[in-house]
Amino acid sequence: MFAVTILGNNSALPTLDRHPTAQVVTCNDSLLLVDCGEGTQVQIARYKIRRSRLKYIFISHLHGDHYFGLIGLINTLSLLGRQDPLYLFGPPELEQILKLQMECAATSLQFEMHFTPLLPENQGIIVNDKDLQVSYFATRHRIPCYGFVFDMQKRKRRIVPEQARAYEIPAAYFSQLAEGADYQRKDGVLVKNDWVTLPPAPGKKYVYCADTMYTEELLPYAHQADLVYHETTYLHNLAERAAERYHSTSVQAATLAAKAEAKRLIIGHFSSKYTELTPFLEECRPVFPNTDLALEGATYII
Amino acid sequence: MFAVTILGNNSALPTLDRHPTAQVVTCNDSLLLVDCGEGTQVQIARYKIRRSRLKYIFISHLHGDHYFGLIGLINTLSLLGRQDPLYLFGPPELEQILKLQMECAATSLQFEMHFTPLLPENQGIIVNDKDLQVSYFATRHRIPCYGFVFDMQKRKRRIVPEQARAYEIPAAYFSQLAEGADYQRKDGVLVKNDWVTLPPAPGKKYVYCADTMYTEELLPYAHQADLVYHETTYLHNLAERAAERYHSTSVQAATLAAKAEAKRLIIGHFSSKYTELTPFLEECRPVFPNTDLALEGATYII
Repeated sequence: MFAVTILGNNSALPTLDRHPTAQVVTCNDSLLLVDCGEGTQVQIARYKIRRSRLKYIFISHLHGDHYFGLIGLINTLSLLGRQDPLYLFGPPELEQILKLQMECAATSLQFEMHFTPLLPENQGIIVNDKDLQVSYFATRHRIPCYGFVFDMQKRKRRIVPEQARAYEIPAAYFSQLAEGADYQRKDGVLVKNDWVTLPPAPGKKYVYCADTMYTEELLPYAHQADLVYHETTYLHNLAERAAERYHSTSVQAATLAAKAEAKRLIIGHFSSKYTELTPFLEECRPVFPNTDLALEGATYII
Repeated sequence: MFAVTILGNNSALPTLDRHPTAQVVTCNDSLLLVDCGEGTQVQIARYKIRRSRLKYIFISHLHGDHYFGLIGLINTLSLLGRQDPLYLFGPPELEQILKLQMECAATSLQFEMHFTPLLPENQGIIVNDKDLQVSYFATRHRIPCYGFVFDMQKRKRRIVPEQARAYEIPAAYFSQLAEGADYQRKDGVLVKNDWVTLPPAPGKKYVYCADTMYTEELLPYAHQADLVYHETTYLHNLAERAAERYHSTSVQAATLAAKAEAKRLIIGHFSSKYTELTPFLEECRPVFPNTDLALEGATYII
């Protein structure tokens, strides 16, 4: 299972029905939170996200609509008795802010929190888990801001059942075959793993482009991604305003997805001035047909 | 108009239908925000509170459920183009936290923000407006925490219409009479103000007791208040837990109101473990009959 669930799709000014940026990436049993605007913990409860499975949190940048909900979420996890470590990634000052807030409240967390600062000079891999690799890259925004590439690697080899049966390998052993083990038969024959399995299926890639003005510097990261999230704060008639504010338009997001040869695009971070979102789709689809709105509560399978 | 509107009545763990602490005190044309838990800016929008009239913000203490929504609200006011100064009161570290968060976001506010640190040694009057006085006092909590006394002073003298007419004072002059002016008649007679008016009606007092364990140290502040807000995190069977955590129970809040000879009590800061709130009323009313629940969205006239 590799999917992303949208918790907030709005830009800085919250509205009554759209929340600031937050997404949950599900990678098998682990949940990864990407940005955490004010109210994210309530959205997590509303959409029944299993907080206990949350393992990694990534904060793209220190504009409030991307992290003001983080300290509240951390507090809540602690109050609820979490014991598993939590891995947090963000600009270095984030750690300072959280520490100061916890000191003032005399909070001592009930779990370990490991913070990794994101620095422009260290761009690259930050998570290398059994089936997931995460790396980060700089976007172009008013303050330092990073996007993330989530690479789900299929580790399990694909069993060819008729071959496995031909070598009389019992089904109970198939899970070990999938992990790459050979099979020792009682008659002394050693069945090599690659006689009965194929290499793992190709991985999947999700690219979160965070807040950014249009820049083709992102193309190498988004290249042939299965899913790209790109912000569209404005419709394209406000391209000038978008550039001034280091944001992007509908058409720019679609252009990036097309040039990157991505398979699918979801768009979000809509300015609160827009009550209707379909015009965003109408502007994107002529440029990149496989575009969808990032809708709160919706899950997009990658 | 002197009233309090509840925006959040829950304690630390938010639920889907109860928010962390925040209240708006209306004093004629001015709005005062008392505490500002996460999501308060959305509650302000939900209950159509006029943000432009917000003049003072008071933060009782630095537990997150009382201030995590503040930085987001301040940001939003700035994005919406506020120009009027904002007066903020809270523990001294609050200023440090806000400054750090604004620096990291490269935020420059579009309005002046005046911060007054609350310190145990300076307890007393912090606002002395034309019709409102606000003072603060220490409560007993795990970290420094303050309650607030809101005193609305009636400045206008009460006109006795039949007397005013007997002296042939035109109705157009009544507003000046209410301000205390004498009236010079064309025939040379000077009508002294106190011949035709009575002193202003007595003021009204609202006392916000913030988070606190039961302590009769609060009695002098709550004495004969028209309305007292006191926390009731727990029902009375959990009195021991309440004390351990520096919180209060239903019966304790009612006892305080009774001993203070208050006229009315509202209770809030309910633990999220309670889905039903009526047991709080059932425990309070035998001790202090004029008790009500602090319900979100409800306005209590003082």
